[in-house]
Amino acid sequence: MSAYDELMAFQRETEALAQIAGRLGWDQETVMPRGAAPQRGEEMAAIEGVLHARRMAPQVGEWLATIDPDRLDDVARAQLRHIRRDFDRATKVPAALAARIARVTSQAQGSWAEARAADDFAAFAPVLAEVVALKREEGQALANGGDVYDAMLADYEPGTSGADLQAMFGALRPELTALRAAVREAEAPPILEGVFDESAQMKLTRQLARTFGYDMSRGRVDKAVHPFSSGSGLDVRITTRTNAIDPFNCFYSTIHEVGHGAYEQNIDHAYLLTPLGQGVSMGVHESQSRIYENQLGRSRAFTSWLYAQMRDAFGDFGVADAETFYRIVNRVSDGFIRTEADELQYNLHVLMRLDLERALMRGDLLVDDLESAWNERFEADFGFPVDRPSNGVLQDVHWSVGLFGYFPTYSLGNVYAGCLYEALRRAVPTLDDDLAQGDTSSATGWLRQNVQTHGGLYEPRDTIARACGKTPDEAPLLGYLKAKFSDLYRL
Amino acid sequence: MSAYDELMAFQRETEALAQIAGRLGWDQETVMPRGAAPQRGEEMAAIEGVLHARRMAPQVGEWLATIDPDRLDDVARAQLRHIRRDFDRATKVPAALAARIARVTSQAQGSWAEARAADDFAAFAPVLAEVVALKREEGQALANGGDVYDAMLADYEPGTSGADLQAMFGALRPELTALRAAVREAEAPPILEGVFDESAQMKLTRQLARTFGYDMSRGRVDKAVHPFSSGSGLDVRITTRTNAIDPFNCFYSTIHEVGHGAYEQNIDHAYLLTPLGQGVSMGVHESQSRIYENQLGRSRAFTSWLYAQMRDAFGDFGVADAETFYRIVNRVSDGFIRTEADELQYNLHVLMRLDLERALMRGDLLVDDLESAWNERFEADFGFPVDRPSNGVLQDVHWSVGLFGYFPTYSLGNVYAGCLYEALRRAVPTLDDDLAQGDTSSATGWLRQNVQTHGGLYEPRDTIARACGKTPDEAPLLGYLKAKFSDLYRL
Repeated sequence: MSAYDELMAFQRETEALAQIAGRLGWDQETVMPRGAAPQRGEEMAAIEGVLHARRMAPQVGEWLATIDPDRLDDVARAQLRHIRRDFDRATKVPAALAARIARVTSQAQGSWAEARAADDFAAFAPVLAEVVALKREEGQALANGGDVYDAMLADYEPGTSGADLQAMFGALRPELTALRAAVREAEAPPILEGVFDESAQMKLTRQLARTFGYDMSRGRVDKAVHPFSSGSGLDVRITTRTNAIDPFNCFYSTIHEVGHGAYEQNIDHAYLLTPLGQGVSMGVHESQSRIYENQLGRSRAFTSWLYAQMRDAFGDFGVADAETFYRIVNRVSDGFIRTEADELQYNLHVLMRLDLERALMRGDLLVDDLESAWNERFEADFGFPVDRPSNGVLQDVHWSVGLFGYFPTYSLGNVYAGCLYEALRRAVPTLDDDLAQGDTSSATGWLRQNVQTHGGLYEPRDTIARACGKTPDEAPLLGYLKAKFSDLYRL
Repeated sequence: MSAYDELMAFQRETEALAQIAGRLGWDQETVMPRGAAPQRGEEMAAIEGVLHARRMAPQVGEWLATIDPDRLDDVARAQLRHIRRDFDRATKVPAALAARIARVTSQAQGSWAEARAADDFAAFAPVLAEVVALKREEGQALANGGDVYDAMLADYEPGTSGADLQAMFGALRPELTALRAAVREAEAPPILEGVFDESAQMKLTRQLARTFGYDMSRGRVDKAVHPFSSGSGLDVRITTRTNAIDPFNCFYSTIHEVGHGAYEQNIDHAYLLTPLGQGVSMGVHESQSRIYENQLGRSRAFTSWLYAQMRDAFGDFGVADAETFYRIVNRVSDGFIRTEADELQYNLHVLMRLDLERALMRGDLLVDDLESAWNERFEADFGFPVDRPSNGVLQDVHWSVGLFGYFPTYSLGNVYAGCLYEALRRAVPTLDDDLAQGDTSSATGWLRQNVQTHGGLYEPRDTIARACGKTPDEAPLLGYLKAKFSDLYRL
């Protein structure tokens, strides 16, 4: 066996073990008995320990030093690129620092939950300050003298810098706040009223999953507190939730997770259990979930079909026609919470987090000043004040567990989805007619062929650029949002 | 940290990883998407590889050589006993042989399934001959010049020899065949007729699980093709099955698996994720499942309560009174299949397998002669001929996957259950009254305190001897069966 083959055999086992760790996560959120939690903690720690040791195993370094990339084909070179990046990542951070981050973030998550319940940021601030300090130290170790925040971003979105994001999102912000303000002045659509049987919701949601191309023979749809997608290759499971008075939560959570899940299912099976065999970045992943959910799922064409499905499932539910239904689905409402935000406002929530976390990492903002910085920025962008910390700076778990550099991938996914949608409309002239029939195959087939099948073969931005035929930027997303909401709100 | 503490920390991680492998098995049989099977194969191989490497890790040998058992307490010495046995087991078998057995048995299982479907033993014989040859080679490596079959038994029932089993079961066989022949001559009870709603079966089966002390906060009951129990400590899951015309299959499968599951749940939590933290042997495990299912669950007292529950769940189902119900539950019917056999005949199925597999391992019986040897023995013990191989020598998966020495633990469990039941009746004079109220707590509490809580602290036979106050033998089981079936069949 060549050194490359030996490395790949080792890597294949590592990927299989990583899939197992993912499956345990799924189990914990769906079927695990409540009383099993303490034991599960030890089980997760044990498998994470095995994975960590394998990722920084000295023989990986030796194989990497032995292999001559010039004698490999493109696919093998791409595999090496991922393996080398992961190995460098794992070996650059001192073991003592990694252990300390694991311990502190595990405790900080509990502190955050308590502070949020008590609506008391001051109680959480010292813990968060410790997390920030440790993550900065880690970022410095990773950055090797370069930009600390960029080094963090590379964990989620390799090849993208804070400056890139600043350029994209800096252009978005004034346009979105202006559009939002105009929408707020206009006449609002009605609100959905009524009670919708939850088992009928689950039945329709499974139909929606199939409609968007999710392969049930290699997946399943269960209920969980938070919707998520888990696993790669032949075993990709999604979850959704139901709420009797809010069926859209169920349906659009499902369509969103199907975007993630179908991406994982549709990667070329030649890459199964290799570094190329999973979505290439958080941003590209989010581009798939967002285009499924928003550009396709919330389109006038698709909602006209969904309206008919809901009439079949629930009878007359008090919405007179498909156009009213479309306006209800896309209603813009005031709100504090990112995860509940609509398509128009969502990015404003993310953009403020990016600016705040970059400032924290640069040392330009102290944790003690974070709450007031949050509140000022929120009021500036949304036009009304935060009423309490649990609706403000304490709403997200991310920072408590050390996820810095993660938030912007949500909006990057939206930007990418905007670019893909522009290219898709060009490539599939029948798109609206297809969606109006409940047929997503022309759209999902195009995404499969142009994005999903490649897995990790190309760098994230290249993946999108190849699909769209040009370097991605924020213009298509902005154009799409302006056109959609100007039409909806008759601006 | 002392060498012992270091060893135990390492061991704790190994046990946690073993729990994960068990959870994957549960997942595969209950919730895994069908199309995930090939990927799951690689995942299982990866975690088994990790476990195998840890079990024979050189540092375990070094720790074992360093630790002075005389300076340890009884619990720690018992931990060491298990760890040393597993380490010796793992290191005695040459790696090439272990790999060959893994490969051949994995293929043999497929060949067995095909041969069974085609009712063609000749097609399977060459494959089985290879398995037998490899397992004998492994047995010789393990036996170190001792008895090969005893070495195999030690994997499932440490401290028990083939000669011990021969003594117990040799005494049972003529008595059981005679009892069976007498029952066959007597008037048979009626057969249960009707159709029983399967979701009502699952509802009642979950109630039965709770009635027998299964803790749902640390477990769950699902449907699967084959009933089983999986996991130890805080996460012990069982499965059952339903059949519209055979509700007893559901209920008694559940009670049987609750015996296994409650054993695992009730082990002293101080042993969690250590070698002492699981059932001590297959035989002791089976003693718990069998006493729950048979001596308790199929008793006149308990069935009188179950009869009332079934009337509540299904209305009048055509059985006039509790005594008739008791006779139906314990009906003895002719049959070829071990897993479908009643309490009286079950051990005869096992005893013939023990004699045949010992002869195979000794070389006294060739695989080519196995089918005729099976058929002769079956007719001698059961009084009618085998009609086809799938009802005979091809009915069980065990030999195809290399499980030699496993079958006798089923009957050993019955023998142990007989001893425990004798002691339990002495210790709990109110037993029948309690069971007639659907209250199993006096019985299950006694088993918990006298057997289950100890986990692996004592050797298997000692575990039973301590609970019963004497060395276990077959006499109590035989006495119990004779009394029960003589009464039922008015012999």
